[in-house]
Amino acid sequence: MKRKIIPGEVPSRELHQYLISAVAPRPIAFVSSLDENGVQNLAPYSFFNVFSSNPPIAVFSSNRKGTNNATKDTLHNVKLQGECVINVVPHSMLRQMSLASVEFPSDVSEFAKVGLTPEPSEIVQAPRVGESPVNMECKVLDIITLGDKGGAGHLIICEILMMTIDESVIVENAIDQDKLDLMGRLGKNFYVRASGNALMELHQSVYDIPIGFDGLPKEVRESAILTGNEIAILASLMNLPGKDTIISFSENNKNLISLSDEEKHLIAKNMISQDLAKDALCLMMI
Amino acid sequence: MKRKIIPGEVPSRELHQYLISAVAPRPIAFVSSLDENGVQNLAPYSFFNVFSSNPPIAVFSSNRKGTNNATKDTLHNVKLQGECVINVVPHSMLRQMSLASVEFPSDVSEFAKVGLTPEPSEIVQAPRVGESPVNMECKVLDIITLGDKGGAGHLIICEILMMTIDESVIVENAIDQDKLDLMGRLGKNFYVRASGNALMELHQSVYDIPIGFDGLPKEVRESAILTGNEIAILASLMNLPGKDTIISFSENNKNLISLSDEEKHLIAKNMISQDLAKDALCLMMI
Repeated sequence: MKRKIIPGEVPSRELHQYLISAVAPRPIAFVSSLDENGVQNLAPYSFFNVFSSNPPIAVFSSNRKGTNNATKDTLHNVKLQGECVINVVPHSMLRQMSLASVEFPSDVSEFAKVGLTPEPSEIVQAPRVGESPVNMECKVLDIITLGDKGGAGHLIICEILMMTIDESVIVENAIDQDKLDLMGRLGKNFYVRASGNALMELHQSVYDIPIGFDGLPKEVRESAILTGNEIAILASLMNLPGKDTIISFSENNKNLISLSDEEKHLIAKNMISQDLAKDALCLMMI
Repeated sequence: MKRKIIPGEVPSRELHQYLISAVAPRPIAFVSSLDENGVQNLAPYSFFNVFSSNPPIAVFSSNRKGTNNATKDTLHNVKLQGECVINVVPHSMLRQMSLASVEFPSDVSEFAKVGLTPEPSEIVQAPRVGESPVNMECKVLDIITLGDKGGAGHLIICEILMMTIDESVIVENAIDQDKLDLMGRLGKNFYVRASGNALMELHQSVYDIPIGFDGLPKEVRESAILTGNEIAILASLMNLPGKDTIISFSENNKNLISLSDEEKHLIAKNMISQDLAKDALCLMMI
């Protein structure tokens, strides 16, 4: 059963929560900027992502508040200065980032309030966060307003002029995702820590054309024993096993031939978990 | 030590990898669309986020390929039809989503190839993914081109006309993040599974003004024993303990008074981990 949510027919606060829980986990832009008096502003935004690598473009939104429709210091500053630094947030900085979301007065620097170090940038005026393992110095190309009510966003379109990456998270000229240990934002008060056992590695060639679900035998495709993920592993193989392969598998596994279909699927399930997808497919095709 | 990466001075493939590892974890838009012949297209995009809740706006990018500069079927379809459905990707659909990233010919429906069910939408022509726990039927408001070379993105700006949410992931009129069990995308072949122990809950009021790092005593703020996260927990308290509170704490903890500063900070560290932040601060201020 699915529940319908029509924007405009539910309270905007409720819609907001559905959206931020469903579109997740979101990367966090910890944005540093300068105001006209030189006050160093620092605030986290999770309506953020990279959208292009050539040219390198990131976009974040500083939203109008749902409560009083006010806009934020960061928006004021990027409009004024046309630049900012996007810093990333590893687990070691989580609480300091969270503290920076407090609405301190505009003339207060969040760097002092949250105990992070303003480090001079090389290209832009706004400082980088010294403790952040990746800083992106940005020129603001455009700001697109998405509405004029509370909850309305802006697309702050940033060209990345320079990245600085801490050597401690680089292995063989690439960022080590586990060492970087980033936090992602979800709904309510939830975050996800993207390191250790929460990481999964999954290679998929986009160029080689695999069997596909529609190329699998009906009894495999519609197996009541295998999950969608398990059938997809079989559908990702490049070819169905040929007759010779199946005959040879049968001769080497005579004890499996007389099993029921259900038993074969259960054993195949186990084979898939042991990276023996080709054998699993042979077994189900005997 | 930080390494400088200047776009244009490193190979675009290398820059792309730095960007997608640093801006992470990214939410996944599993986008269904229709072409002029009625072929049902389905493809995953992680250059994606929500940017506004009033009006509800999501943006994703279908990028020009780094290898041959070609654009993708989804971009063709959303230009043509002005609509699409954004479906979310829980762990149970990970392998099927991954299989949909294969570049099947344009006249092939990925729904058949990856074994997912095209379910009729209510407002748009493109089908929803029946198995996805959240579908967002969208009208495409605008498409902004970010460049004309390989790796260039597009901002495909979508207004969400309707959300459908599976009742199985709703608890008390809100999405249960653990039940939703979403996948996020990182660099290389990495994903993060946003459920179970990988989730962290952290409440931060944005309206109440806490002590801040600069309001803490110097020896606390500069503790060699406490981490940034731990000091931030103390800085998030609303007030420093007053003289009376410290005296009363001392009287109740006479055994702690004569400890060295280092010993006090070690015990304070343990108190913080047990949600005794106020006591920890008292102890370090004796």
